[in-house]
Amino acid sequence: MLRVGIIGASGYTGVELARILSTHPDCELTVATSRQYAGKPLASVFPSLRKRVSLICENPDLDVLCDKADCFFTAVPHKTAMEIVPFLLEAGKKVVDLSADFRIHDAAVYEQWYQPHTCPQLLADAVYGLPELYRKQITGTALTANPGCYPTSVILGLAPLLQEGFIDPETIIIDSKSGTSGAGRSASVATLFCEVTDGFRAYKVGGSHRHIPEMEQELSLLAGRDVTISFTPHLLPISRGILSTMYASLGGDVDLDTIQELYEKKYEDEPFVRVCAPGDLPATQHVRGSNCCDIGLQADQRTGRIIVISAIDNIAKGAAGQAVQNMNLMHGFPEATGLMGAPFFP
Amino acid sequence: MLRVGIIGASGYTGVELARILSTHPDCELTVATSRQYAGKPLASVFPSLRKRVSLICENPDLDVLCDKADCFFTAVPHKTAMEIVPFLLEAGKKVVDLSADFRIHDAAVYEQWYQPHTCPQLLADAVYGLPELYRKQITGTALTANPGCYPTSVILGLAPLLQEGFIDPETIIIDSKSGTSGAGRSASVATLFCEVTDGFRAYKVGGSHRHIPEMEQELSLLAGRDVTISFTPHLLPISRGILSTMYASLGGDVDLDTIQELYEKKYEDEPFVRVCAPGDLPATQHVRGSNCCDIGLQADQRTGRIIVISAIDNIAKGAAGQAVQNMNLMHGFPEATGLMGAPFFP
Amino acid sequence: MLRVGIIGASGYTGVELARILSTHPDCELTVATSRQYAGKPLASVFPSLRKRVSLICENPDLDVLCDKADCFFTAVPHKTAMEIVPFLLEAGKKVVDLSADFRIHDAAVYEQWYQPHTCPQLLADAVYGLPELYRKQITGTALTANPGCYPTSVILGLAPLLQEGFIDPETIIIDSKSGTSGAGRSASVATLFCEVTDGFRAYKVGGSHRHIPEMEQELSLLAGRDVTISFTPHLLPISRGILSTMYASLGGDVDLDTIQELYEKKYEDEPFVRVCAPGDLPATQHVRGSNCCDIGLQADQRTGRIIVISAIDNIAKGAAGQAVQNMNLMHGFPEATGLMGAPFFP
Amino acid sequence: MLRVGIIGASGYTGVELARILSTHPDCELTVATSRQYAGKPLASVFPSLRKRVSLICENPDLDVLCDKADCFFTAVPHKTAMEIVPFLLEAGKKVVDLSADFRIHDAAVYEQWYQPHTCPQLLADAVYGLPELYRKQITGTALTANPGCYPTSVILGLAPLLQEGFIDPETIIIDSKSGTSGAGRSASVATLFCEVTDGFRAYKVGGSHRHIPEMEQELSLLAGRDVTISFTPHLLPISRGILSTMYASLGGDVDLDTIQELYEKKYEDEPFVRVCAPGDLPATQHVRGSNCCDIGLQADQRTGRIIVISAIDNIAKGAAGQAVQNMNLMHGFPEATGLMGAPFFP
Repeated sequence: MLRVGIIGASGYTGVELARILSTHPDCELTVATSRQYAGKPLASVFPSLRKRVSLICENPDLDVLCDKADCFFTAVPHKTAMEIVPFLLEAGKKVVDLSADFRIHDAAVYEQWYQPHTCPQLLADAVYGLPELYRKQITGTALTANPGCYPTSVILGLAPLLQEGFIDPETIIIDSKSGTSGAGRSASVATLFCEVTDGFRAYKVGGSHRHIPEMEQELSLLAGRDVTISFTPHLLPISRGILSTMYASLGGDVDLDTIQELYEKKYEDEPFVRVCAPGDLPATQHVRGSNCCDIGLQADQRTGRIIVISAIDNIAKGAAGQAVQNMNLMHGFPEATGLMGAPFFP
Repeated sequence: MLRVGIIGASGYTGVELARILSTHPDCELTVATSRQYAGKPLASVFPSLRKRVSLICENPDLDVLCDKADCFFTAVPHKTAMEIVPFLLEAGKKVVDLSADFRIHDAAVYEQWYQPHTCPQLLADAVYGLPELYRKQITGTALTANPGCYPTSVILGLAPLLQEGFIDPETIIIDSKSGTSGAGRSASVATLFCEVTDGFRAYKVGGSHRHIPEMEQELSLLAGRDVTISFTPHLLPISRGILSTMYASLGGDVDLDTIQELYEKKYEDEPFVRVCAPGDLPATQHVRGSNCCDIGLQADQRTGRIIVISAIDNIAKGAAGQAVQNMNLMHGFPEATGLMGAPFFP
Repeated sequence: MLRVGIIGASGYTGVELARILSTHPDCELTVATSRQYAGKPLASVFPSLRKRVSLICENPDLDVLCDKADCFFTAVPHKTAMEIVPFLLEAGKKVVDLSADFRIHDAAVYEQWYQPHTCPQLLADAVYGLPELYRKQITGTALTANPGCYPTSVILGLAPLLQEGFIDPETIIIDSKSGTSGAGRSASVATLFCEVTDGFRAYKVGGSHRHIPEMEQELSLLAGRDVTISFTPHLLPISRGILSTMYASLGGDVDLDTIQELYEKKYEDEPFVRVCAPGDLPATQHVRGSNCCDIGLQADQRTGRIIVISAIDNIAKGAAGQAVQNMNLMHGFPEATGLMGAPFFP
Repeated sequence: MLRVGIIGASGYTGVELARILSTHPDCELTVATSRQYAGKPLASVFPSLRKRVSLICENPDLDVLCDKADCFFTAVPHKTAMEIVPFLLEAGKKVVDLSADFRIHDAAVYEQWYQPHTCPQLLADAVYGLPELYRKQITGTALTANPGCYPTSVILGLAPLLQEGFIDPETIIIDSKSGTSGAGRSASVATLFCEVTDGFRAYKVGGSHRHIPEMEQELSLLAGRDVTISFTPHLLPISRGILSTMYASLGGDVDLDTIQELYEKKYEDEPFVRVCAPGDLPATQHVRGSNCCDIGLQADQRTGRIIVISAIDNIAKGAAGQAVQNMNLMHGFPEATGLMGAPFFP
């Protein structure tokens, strides 16, 4: 039985990790840290966990933690992760880091979008934790950089097209919409119920969202050339879910049937990627609470563009679910263990 | 591996049953009927089931069905259930009926609130499927009458008080609020998104809701005398969840501490009933997607009343989850099999 | 043209006052104070006011304010109101106070539920601002204590029954549900979108909500005797709206028809109270954005109880709308000026 | 006092027209037709209209109607409008048609997207009812074709850029999101509360939405050349509101400041178009319940694209509000009469 710890358990990713792990047959949640709630049961912070998780939150004293668990999920803000992760690795622990600190391979790019990187030497060892692309590498690493929520939806959506060279990378426009849990659990006027409900808005328009370098890194690797994207995030009045609508000009004379077939074949054996039948489209309410990524395809013959639409649950496949998927791989458990639950509908 | 069928799979109870059963280790979903969608994959009716349930909907031809499964969930309207269940029982099948047809022990009472009963002879054999009260009987029956959603929240909430005689049964007032999934999946203007969202209303006020005789039957049995209640249902702009606020005058000099202790002891070993800590109160968002029933207690010293508040997920503990709990008991599986997932939050 | 000021303009009551006043033909909004946003346009705090309100927020310097307006809405927390209102009155201004500070006639009662009262001498002059009960007195006062949102829904709902002595005051139970705007606009985890949406809960159960003494004061005056109530507030996942479900035992042999007739007659000429037709029930979505209070009636013959259900928009009739109604009366404008807009549906 | 009729009053556009007209000082609602609800008060169909609208719904008998009103809003499906409008015009009535039947100037284009046009001779007289573009022509016409909701948000958003030739029309991609009221008030499973809430999806992807020819017609006129667009509509879990995110490549070396200035100047005197301050972005919750269209601008220097975001209330500026604006123009009333109410927030 693997002993697992969550560092930073009081956010929405933390409670989702605790939920998934509470029924995982191969591991046991032994540590949950929270400065704010230290000494209180995690189930009093999140009453959904009553009678399911009995752990008490504790302060993140790394020496103490290392005695209690073998694998850690670091669900802390970027910068804080850089301070914690090296210590855990040195202590021989495996880490799935949910921050941005180890996703960008090039420290210079990281520093351009974030702040100075304090342990660039770890970047070469960190594996970008998208199992559908890097399954093998994840299996062998001690440090997985769990992808961002938007990037997960985008990279899975565009990978086959870019790998085949079916689209012109210059023309990629990504219009993404995220549920409000993506904004975290800090008190803030902007995410109060009354500010969000019955409304919709864009934010960080014009190429300023910090998930852009992460997406461009991976899309460029897939395309075999530099890719620059237009990316616009929006805030949906829902808790969970991301839907990304992606546009690109089709090169050559590839048609929709070919693309549909490509996606179905590419993702056939993936337990969590579900390609919609021709004519069908994904919806966030059909992946809610699950580790699934649904993808739908449609061509616009009038303009020669392909439209790819992908849907994930941003807390699950976009964070905690994918993190457990990575943990499974890193520890030799069957990849889908604890994650095969179908989405909740309605 | 138990072969299980769902008769009436195209409603919200149907999809929840399919979801729960899709990861249940001891049974396999082998039949799903729907007149409307016969011939179509259940996963095309409910795309949430993509890659999780591959069953094709079929017409409810009882002879054919009986060859395909050993246990059936009848998730059909009352009256239809009375027509199907006798046939299934005669064929030696076990049945969890989710309609109202076998919940009321007294056919005369049933007929007063519904319509003529066509197989009253089965009423004596049917067990009211609330495991917390009738665990033993359920274990031995071939026909479980799965409780209504409101009654589940109310009976679990009031049982200890009535059993101990701590409240005056004449004074019980129950103000319940249900999510919209309780209204079913039929096309109707009244439950369109725009009619329900950002709104709230009562319905069937003044003692006319058909769950009343079911509640009064069970509350009377618990109290050992006839109980007549005031019950007002309301429609919440949420998908899943029932919260019942129950008022009654305290008899004698019983205090809140005693009652809190009573509930904690009574429900201590129940996997799905969670008594809130003193001062805490339940919320539907903390039981969402789970088979849990959370109960909170508070006294109003100014008026000598006790207020009991219970929360369930109406599709889960209020329907499909409880039905699977009953199926587990009827087939000797551990009672909580497939149902221990913690609620989804947020 | 009356010059009007809002002290405390950055909350939801503030923006609703600004919205209503922006098209009021007889007055002009000349002052809006906010410590937090001083120096910023009110329309940058609330972009809904773009091109409709051009006022800049200013610090609440009372001397300066008094030069700029003749009538003030004090939309500040209780205790702060007590500090400001005496100054405004002495300066010859008229005041509609939206806090609780002048609603309770008896300073001792106020102090029991709130804190020491620093200007009890004003209590005798303050008029409880429910126009349907105190129209005449409001017309002649310089200080109106605008009622709380729950009390507005409850008092209008029960007034006719209590005045006629049709119910037993000992048996009154009030189960109220409020939209989240009632919790204000301060940053707080408990009212984040993800904590509230798709959920429902009770709070301050057991006779602890501070609106209780206000309701009991007015209900007692109507009944001509002391009235003690059980009152349970709940939090709805909607922005605006309160629905109160009120239970009481009917005295004597009064029937529903008589009560229906009583309400229709009592409220016949009221522009903002709308009695539902027999069999109809109110809904918050049918009063949204308006100054209306809808009331529906139903009897439960099985238990001898009457159920009264009332619905208001808590920011409108429950706060800002009623405040403008009071201002109209205090200044001799037709009472409904600026307030006759029908509710928004959907 | 102008007598006004609504043909097809039982939909969401109908109730919004009735709401706006109920306080309009220059006209009186004298007719509301509904086959389904003939003989019932409109306020029993829409209880929000209690005590505000006393009209009884009647069957659409055109001879009778013509005696009762001088101006009609035809809020009926396309095709039905073509059958009614010629009759009304011949009877000397003025008409604001809210269907698509008279929006497309070229009958051949109309027939390609809809069905055969039965009165193409009227197309030359019909004016496209976007006052910001066609104010003068609307003033002089008897038949205004009220724009579609999506086209209103898109055309107002792109007009200045196209008129100035600042963008490459080949590169326009429009990603729009609409509230569910746009789907109408017919009973349908797809728009049930439980299917829509807490979810998000695209529909009619790939150039198949019928608003496309209408948008392309107007954008082409603005650009002075043929414009073909990619347009993807999405369904938001809100009642009211459209937000369109529009992408295009900037031609030449025009910068964001220039564009911001262009928009501010272009829309300076428009009562209903509000250009956001630099850095600000529109949100549907900031135009809710109003006739406003808010527009925000941002450049993506990394890709050389401009992103224009516009927000309207689809029932107001996208339908009923704009229809009243057109009626005002057609009858010589001040254009903004009855429409200057600020949006509802929260």
